[in-house]
Amino acid sequence: MNRMITLTTDFGLRDGYAGEMKGVILGINPDAAIIDISHEIEPQNVGQAAFVLGTTSPHFPPGTVHVVVVDPGVGTERKAILLETTSGLFLGPDNGVLSYVMEANPQYRAIALTNSKYWRKPVSLTFHGRDIFAPVAAHLSKGVAPGELGETVTSLATLYICQPEEQGSELVGEVVYIDGFGNLVTNIRESDLPQQHEAVEFEVGGRVIRGLSRSYAEGGELLAIPGSSDRMEIAARNGSAASRLGARIGQKVLLRKLNPDVNHA
Amino acid sequence: MNRMITLTTDFGLRDGYAGEMKGVILGINPDAAIIDISHEIEPQNVGQAAFVLGTTSPHFPPGTVHVVVVDPGVGTERKAILLETTSGLFLGPDNGVLSYVMEANPQYRAIALTNSKYWRKPVSLTFHGRDIFAPVAAHLSKGVAPGELGETVTSLATLYICQPEEQGSELVGEVVYIDGFGNLVTNIRESDLPQQHEAVEFEVGGRVIRGLSRSYAEGGELLAIPGSSDRMEIAARNGSAASRLGARIGQKVLLRKLNPDVNHA
Amino acid sequence: MNRMITLTTDFGLRDGYAGEMKGVILGINPDAAIIDISHEIEPQNVGQAAFVLGTTSPHFPPGTVHVVVVDPGVGTERKAILLETTSGLFLGPDNGVLSYVMEANPQYRAIALTNSKYWRKPVSLTFHGRDIFAPVAAHLSKGVAPGELGETVTSLATLYICQPEEQGSELVGEVVYIDGFGNLVTNIRESDLPQQHEAVEFEVGGRVIRGLSRSYAEGGELLAIPGSSDRMEIAARNGSAASRLGARIGQKVLLRKLNPDVNHA
Repeated sequence: MNRMITLTTDFGLRDGYAGEMKGVILGINPDAAIIDISHEIEPQNVGQAAFVLGTTSPHFPPGTVHVVVVDPGVGTERKAILLETTSGLFLGPDNGVLSYVMEANPQYRAIALTNSKYWRKPVSLTFHGRDIFAPVAAHLSKGVAPGELGETVTSLATLYICQPEEQGSELVGEVVYIDGFGNLVTNIRESDLPQQHEAVEFEVGGRVIRGLSRSYAEGGELLAIPGSSDRMEIAARNGSAASRLGARIGQKVLLRKLNPDVNHA
Repeated sequence: MNRMITLTTDFGLRDGYAGEMKGVILGINPDAAIIDISHEIEPQNVGQAAFVLGTTSPHFPPGTVHVVVVDPGVGTERKAILLETTSGLFLGPDNGVLSYVMEANPQYRAIALTNSKYWRKPVSLTFHGRDIFAPVAAHLSKGVAPGELGETVTSLATLYICQPEEQGSELVGEVVYIDGFGNLVTNIRESDLPQQHEAVEFEVGGRVIRGLSRSYAEGGELLAIPGSSDRMEIAARNGSAASRLGARIGQKVLLRKLNPDVNHA
Repeated sequence: MNRMITLTTDFGLRDGYAGEMKGVILGINPDAAIIDISHEIEPQNVGQAAFVLGTTSPHFPPGTVHVVVVDPGVGTERKAILLETTSGLFLGPDNGVLSYVMEANPQYRAIALTNSKYWRKPVSLTFHGRDIFAPVAAHLSKGVAPGELGETVTSLATLYICQPEEQGSELVGEVVYIDGFGNLVTNIRESDLPQQHEAVEFEVGGRVIRGLSRSYAEGGELLAIPGSSDRMEIAARNGSAASRLGARIGQKVLLRKLNPDVNHA
């Protein structure tokens, strides 16, 4: 059992919606420790929420209950699901928002939340975060078994998670997330680099970055560096790479391995 | 007794003001569980805070201590008050910010916070949130009786809460809140609808919306739907109704009951 | 021992970075109470973070562990330090971000965090908040002795904290912080005023403000008032002094003592 419950939503911080969820949780489990991962996901941006939850949740203790509510289809036929994994219990709508979690935890069990015994009544049309996900999370944190919550399901909605591709001598990756500093997080992993890490160059938006940096403060105006989620990042010294490059999600990032014996200067 | 204390302010999230309140509370009651409802209320917008607190607080356990600090009159003669209700204890300035709470809990008792024994000293001119409301909340959460905090008062400042009005065959309501998704929350209740829910149309900003939707994803570009606080909402599919309509608080929303036997197509 | 840990960062609230730190802390000390001071410090603005932490932290119980991560030099040779004071334990990069804390607690002991036993492994190049500061904070909150964490250091980076200067009959101060309401917080203290508080005038941006106000609601369009951190503030009634004056950090603020026996009307 684990009294920790995290929240990831697109509710923003002005309205009372996140507060309503917390009130419902604490009404069921007054000892719950509720941790906000983010309420500033862009409205209806399922992919952004999927990435944030996928990179943040592994740092929480196993058994933590993670709730994600970015749910443009609330009130339609889309299922509400629980994903049971060895690294945590994940609650959210079946719209792909758990895709990164599923990729990292392929041995999951999925359950459709159909047992209304654990819901707040009446269930509103527009706010299952408060009326289904929050009370179910609170009951899970008190030790209710996942199997109590509904039936196992096998077919789930997933987002397409793009992997980098070898094309000739290049690895073609892309920008999968842009953080608040304007750092471009790519789908190229540190393990995609050659053994001699420095013998590479990146190309993005027509700009070429030669070699790797060891800190945001070192390197030229633009730099490439292994980021904190094991993904290669394109960053700008004391600034935003995103604004300097006019970058966007999905933009191509090329990795070229250089011959270290040749002078590329 | 209840160790839960919620905060609703217009302090924003960059400055340390909310943090100062939390520090003061935890210095008095280290076991307090402090829950942020919102610190992003628009500066000095008493009406917005009143609505957010009024719709969010009912979801917390009875006995929760709710603190609201949107207080442009801090340091003037305006009273600091405690509202004791069966659904919670509410602390805030006497400027109308508790109006929705009073409407929902007409059997309240109000106490002016005059007993300086429970304040932080010295009391600043500009920050009673930290120096009066926070320490009083902490003492309440430790079981101090409301009657210890000051004298009962009977006359309180209230905001005018506009109710919809019948005009001929129409019900004339208005927009009372616009949420972060751009949904227009109205003062028309689901119970104002005719028994045959679908036999209605709404008019707002010159646009007519026929019938009700059952989800944000169904219906036309603009749709009407019963929202999560039992109020009718005008929403836009995957977008912001507020920007599509250029809507503002106080804008009229008309509800017309249609004769279900007549073809309105 | 104190289970309270505060966080002050420039991570913003959309990304998962603050959440990752919380996950790491709770993995080590599940009973930690984590309080956000701010995650909305302007990116890389060390001075802003220093001020926010310096004015907020004194309101927390002694022994609280305060973590500040505004760290543009992460991954370079800059040290990671612990400042041990009678008012709390402070963790952050050695880049001046603890300057206000050091000024208020001149009897501190500083320790360079060099004992990797208390770190998360592997340590990323770009996120020592998660990999060094968060786990060290968690261990401190569980009672690990500061001396276990590394070696005492004596030379630390500090920001220049400007003090007001007498120039003839004037005291020349400056704006040191602008809060979210647009109030200009100055480095002139209430104790810099003459005994007859009212016999003063302030000049800022070519505008003269005569006398002091006792509340934000009293006084002219612009007013001067002792603020909640014992600093004189320039404010605007129901508005932003910063926008009215086009003010900026470092802008001069003059204090002139008036002869109370002369009519200055």
